[in-house]
Amino acid sequence: MENFTFHNPTRIHFGRGQIAKLDRELPAKARVLLLAGGGSIRQNGVYDQVRTALGNRPVIEFFGVEANPDYDTLMKAVEICRREAVDWILAVGGGSVLDGAKFVAAATPFKGDPWDLLAKGEKVREALPLGAVLTLPATGSEANSAAVISRRARHEKLAFLSPLLFPRFSILDPESTFSLPARQVANGIGDAFCHVLEQYLTFPVNAAIQDRFAESILRVLIEEGPKTLADPKDYAARANLVWAATWALNTAIGVGVPQDWATHMIGHELTALHGLDHARTLAVVLPSLLQVQRDGKREKLLQYAARVWDLRDGGEDARIDAAIAATRKFYESLGIGTHLADYGVPAGVAAEVARQLEARGAIKLGERGDITPAVVEKILRLAA
Amino acid sequence: MENFTFHNPTRIHFGRGQIAKLDRELPAKARVLLLAGGGSIRQNGVYDQVRTALGNRPVIEFFGVEANPDYDTLMKAVEICRREAVDWILAVGGGSVLDGAKFVAAATPFKGDPWDLLAKGEKVREALPLGAVLTLPATGSEANSAAVISRRARHEKLAFLSPLLFPRFSILDPESTFSLPARQVANGIGDAFCHVLEQYLTFPVNAAIQDRFAESILRVLIEEGPKTLADPKDYAARANLVWAATWALNTAIGVGVPQDWATHMIGHELTALHGLDHARTLAVVLPSLLQVQRDGKREKLLQYAARVWDLRDGGEDARIDAAIAATRKFYESLGIGTHLADYGVPAGVAAEVARQLEARGAIKLGERGDITPAVVEKILRLAA
Repeated sequence: MENFTFHNPTRIHFGRGQIAKLDRELPAKARVLLLAGGGSIRQNGVYDQVRTALGNRPVIEFFGVEANPDYDTLMKAVEICRREAVDWILAVGGGSVLDGAKFVAAATPFKGDPWDLLAKGEKVREALPLGAVLTLPATGSEANSAAVISRRARHEKLAFLSPLLFPRFSILDPESTFSLPARQVANGIGDAFCHVLEQYLTFPVNAAIQDRFAESILRVLIEEGPKTLADPKDYAARANLVWAATWALNTAIGVGVPQDWATHMIGHELTALHGLDHARTLAVVLPSLLQVQRDGKREKLLQYAARVWDLRDGGEDARIDAAIAATRKFYESLGIGTHLADYGVPAGVAAEVARQLEARGAIKLGERGDITPAVVEKILRLAA
Repeated sequence: MENFTFHNPTRIHFGRGQIAKLDRELPAKARVLLLAGGGSIRQNGVYDQVRTALGNRPVIEFFGVEANPDYDTLMKAVEICRREAVDWILAVGGGSVLDGAKFVAAATPFKGDPWDLLAKGEKVREALPLGAVLTLPATGSEANSAAVISRRARHEKLAFLSPLLFPRFSILDPESTFSLPARQVANGIGDAFCHVLEQYLTFPVNAAIQDRFAESILRVLIEEGPKTLADPKDYAARANLVWAATWALNTAIGVGVPQDWATHMIGHELTALHGLDHARTLAVVLPSLLQVQRDGKREKLLQYAARVWDLRDGGEDARIDAAIAATRKFYESLGIGTHLADYGVPAGVAAEVARQLEARGAIKLGERGDITPAVVEKILRLAA
């Protein structure tokens, strides 16, 4: 196990009716910016619960944060925060709203050009406090300190993080996710699954707890995912999905171990160039990446085969093939295509993504730094 | 899954050489009380590392916190803190020192009789900040907000907790535990194992993540425990034990599920009456308790048999018998006797413990509240 620091101060309120806890979590005199997406929270009752809990606090509402939250949209929220002296950000939505809220929290007090927080990795020295009401289990953003922001005008999608950006609290009421479209639930399952693999499927460093926790989350997603898609109002299955998605990226399984994240890096480029759903880019990249990187990942692939898919018989390569095939089949079973062709993306994108990453200086991806632009191209050609 | 709130703000620095981080964690002007046990930290190098990291800060040392930390001892530390205007507590030791530090942190600013924090459950409204350098993997106290304090003069052993008592930071360097006596390492493994079962082996509520994480920790203790006893300087095995013991009681596996803790409650009385090591009381009580409570715990016992001990064949009762026997055998393999007779404790203690618990008002123990004093007596008679 490598040395690490683990710290996750977010307070989670989990379960039915927990949105009422907002009243306890926010200062009585907080000046709140309520950040939300397209307005589904007005239909499913979440908005009413939130406004009731907020009581008489002054609240400015900012709807319209899109999937893959956009810099230009968020800068409008930043202007409001500055103008109205907002002192608390409340995200009500999924990972995109959460990520957007983190950016607004950091950008509002930032002195320079906020884009530099992303493009130049400028350190976050100050941030507004933020809390969240989560309505979509997927990204883990409700209990981590990272965010990914897109800038459509420039075909960019970049990440940043800071310990100041952990939500002070997050409220996770599984019932508030019952009305999600199946496509979004499936995406969430696929996203969380990939988050685990990015931290787990590398090379072994004798991190027994992290490995077994990762395998636990994967098994829960495999078991509960189909249940919650089949019956969206099955509280137990949905609750297990919500809690699994949080643990997939609250940093607990990632401390002290090597991490990959090449699937995400490559996937972000596909979203930036062709607008694919984030989870769908992962489903396209992941099986091909595992195939191309199978030698470097051999030991963990065998462990994954045995402990997650119960594949223990046959030769090593056969087990690895079967584990990769099972991964692909899992995504397909969620209704998520695993080939570029499923989304009408031409094979030529392989070279284009490789060039983009190279231009960004991202020329040594993966846990061993051996995924060069040429390897990226190979992975995407295999995913055609 | 039941509703819950999960919050664990302790920052963990894990690994070789991490004691140096003390300098970053403590304010430059902190007035520190360094709380420690019998002095083993002077032999194993931990003390020197700690003092080097503390630099020129004013430090008052208080050695002599005993196993099952004693109220009268700790009140001497409280007096010093008050007299010397100490504003930070640094625990350097195992769970007893940690628990003692939590009591000192809460008792120092407490206005009334500090014993009421334990005996009357008085709320902790204020506490000195505390940090820890852990030298013994066992209790999980390094990352939770609870403590157990003994008062030998009155044969008492009582617990208390408060969110104000989470260590601000804990430093876990597996190397600093290499020199521990085998008996203490074995006790630590046995203690952590029981902590997991107290939160896991109850009745199912469809908490998939909590269950699988609990099973993960149990398997890691079963696999890594014997390794680290056989070769105390095997860094990987010791690191896995240290991290497993933290997760066994940092509340992650206990949220949203029923909890038992009857084994601990009964065990505390055995320690109070006969001075047995904490972990040894657990080893005595646990197998008998599982036997007596097997009907109420049936479903989880079968799950435990299958997922932790790979016992999947045969009838239900045979699998439950085998799982209880495996539990007993595990403790015995650590060199920990599982019968009262192993410690020269007479069978008459059964009635005595039952009376003690009754006098304390603890007459409905266990996750179903069905462990009455009569059941306690039955459990201990079976453990003779």
